[in-house]
Amino acid sequence: FSFSAFVNRPALGILPPENFPDKLIESVLSIAPSGMTRVQTMACGSCSNENAFKTMFIWYRNKERGYANPSEQEVGTCMINQSPGCPDLSILSFMGAFHGRTLGCLATTHSKVIHKLDIPSFDWPIAPFPKLQYPLEEFVRENAQEEARCLEEVEDLIVKWRQKGKPVAGIVIEPIQAEGGDNHASPDFFIKLRNIARKHGCAFHVDEVQTGGGTTGKFWAHEHWGLDDPADVVSFSKKLLTGGYYHRDELQPDKPYRIFNTWMGDPSKNLFLSEVLNVIRRENLLEEVTRSGKTLLQGLYALQTQYPHILSRARGQGTFCAIDACNDATRDSIMIKARNKGLFMGSCGEKTIRFRPTLVFKEYHVHQLLNILNDVLAEHK
Amino acid sequence: FSFSAFVNRPALGILPPENFPDKLIESVLSIAPSGMTRVQTMACGSCSNENAFKTMFIWYRNKERGYANPSEQEVGTCMINQSPGCPDLSILSFMGAFHGRTLGCLATTHSKVIHKLDIPSFDWPIAPFPKLQYPLEEFVRENAQEEARCLEEVEDLIVKWRQKGKPVAGIVIEPIQAEGGDNHASPDFFIKLRNIARKHGCAFHVDEVQTGGGTTGKFWAHEHWGLDDPADVVSFSKKLLTGGYYHRDELQPDKPYRIFNTWMGDPSKNLFLSEVLNVIRRENLLEEVTRSGKTLLQGLYALQTQYPHILSRARGQGTFCAIDACNDATRDSIMIKARNKGLFMGSCGEKTIRFRPTLVFKEYHVHQLLNILNDVLAEHK
Repeated sequence: FSFSAFVNRPALGILPPENFPDKLIESVLSIAPSGMTRVQTMACGSCSNENAFKTMFIWYRNKERGYANPSEQEVGTCMINQSPGCPDLSILSFMGAFHGRTLGCLATTHSKVIHKLDIPSFDWPIAPFPKLQYPLEEFVRENAQEEARCLEEVEDLIVKWRQKGKPVAGIVIEPIQAEGGDNHASPDFFIKLRNIARKHGCAFHVDEVQTGGGTTGKFWAHEHWGLDDPADVVSFSKKLLTGGYYHRDELQPDKPYRIFNTWMGDPSKNLFLSEVLNVIRRENLLEEVTRSGKTLLQGLYALQTQYPHILSRARGQGTFCAIDACNDATRDSIMIKARNKGLFMGSCGEKTIRFRPTLVFKEYHVHQLLNILNDVLAEHK
Repeated sequence: FSFSAFVNRPALGILPPENFPDKLIESVLSIAPSGMTRVQTMACGSCSNENAFKTMFIWYRNKERGYANPSEQEVGTCMINQSPGCPDLSILSFMGAFHGRTLGCLATTHSKVIHKLDIPSFDWPIAPFPKLQYPLEEFVRENAQEEARCLEEVEDLIVKWRQKGKPVAGIVIEPIQAEGGDNHASPDFFIKLRNIARKHGCAFHVDEVQTGGGTTGKFWAHEHWGLDDPADVVSFSKKLLTGGYYHRDELQPDKPYRIFNTWMGDPSKNLFLSEVLNVIRRENLLEEVTRSGKTLLQGLYALQTQYPHILSRARGQGTFCAIDACNDATRDSIMIKARNKGLFMGSCGEKTIRFRPTLVFKEYHVHQLLNILNDVLAEHK
């Protein structure tokens, strides 16, 4: 199998290698989030979210028709893109979200103009994502009010879109809005959102394409929430080396070939992932990330205290950290100067610097990072 | 590079391996169809078509706004999925087409209910694909009329959808409708369709995901048409081992990051393709395919003459051949009996058997195939 996986590209849906199920169990299924009993691999993150959306639409319509066979009218209209066969269902997403760039995903992405401009879209509801004020301990009441406001808006939108004849089949959300500016919300917000989804019969889809893989200190960022009731769908890609999504039993499509394509992933990437997981376990990398992440965040707090006219809103989970500059020009200038001293950082949102070190980022790396950043900021003063 | 490509997965858009352009030139660009100056690799066929559609939308809107910067209104509305930022543009496709299963692609796919049911779609125009009568030489006038009827309908739809406020930015078509039942049309049909696209300012996208790679006897099936003016976009996947699409210079997006994702393909697959191309050239496999294909098609003609109550409409280009059974039950029974004798065939459309041998399928393989098929049909009589 191992050799063959690197020189052949099987049509996984029809002719998977004989021990493919075992390889799935050793790789992606060995790290399945709580409650997630099934996995579907896909070739990239966008395809993962597109197919996760389809899974939620199929589940929703089967519920609506009482698991009966589709009507003649549904069968006839679906071939010409018309309702009821192609129903006016929607996915609720959040302002600032990024879920990919193919047409379905793009209708739930609202982070940058360059992603969206000129591409036809769907009239799907978009809720506000909480804008938390930092430091969190100084704005406890304000932030709780802000999260309550956003949740209220979610419920209003679900009701409004049902009235419009475009019911919300699923809610999709990132545990940390990454492209949108490293926006965080509290576990309480996500737990209440999950309850709203259940109450209104919508599937709850957690997009872990950016956050999954261990950099938050847990393998899945949403494991920090302490959900009683798991999500319905969790999608992944990037650090997992293969795209895909987990889902609960009840979201399994009722017939074969409803979720299908030729490649459905790439078994060689599952082998990579197995090896990566071995290293993560052997070297306790999630503990390492938790330790490095704490040191990093403390260092960022210290820097923003030292340079309050330049930096603010240090935040993060594990090493998945970020800090805001006073404006985008300053942010870009800091990034370029740091790069010239050997420190490569990323940007997101309007004026945010984001840190995305690998899992082998140790405390002594944190000190190197903070020293370079301090030098750059001192020059900037 | 070679070793690294098999153990790392680079973010090709941001940090491609240093000699990645050379590897593209050696692989996908060495077989670019006439007129295609640029290539964008992608991880799968659906992502290739989704991004090809986006490329056409961006090109179309830039033409419409005279290559000026987008208006404030466009910038503002695109973030909330509304026109004019997310304009009501459409892609014209054909009944029976298959262009993939993600939401954008699926709006141009019209082959089977199972692909489409329950998934929201776009109100995009769908033209009839010619239904040719066989044998072709007996129905020259009827088939020419049928193709003229379909082309007239295409022009009508382009006008109608422009009046509806959903102008057609691009026309997408397969050289042979594969999933839809191995439906062929004449080179004259495609040349006239290309002219209609130009006349109305629509991009012309040839989807070679199924037909590309040499099985028609040319590397690209649309090279059989003898177009004066090349297509605007040609997409590929499957046999090319990587997804992607070629396009003309003028369809290059005006800004970076408009067409982008993290992986944008997989450089290890380009290395596979280079090796496959070396074998195709060294062993003259396209000539081999042409030879085997002629023998296969003649054999199918002979079988349908011998079993006229079971078989009809033998057709094909190279080894990309098909034949219809009298009904789907008979088709399925023939396929199962053949499989039990060691001959694995595919199905498509309602009652079609499709042949998709690899490029090393020689004339003696054809005879083995025809012998088994003849045995099965003799039993069936």
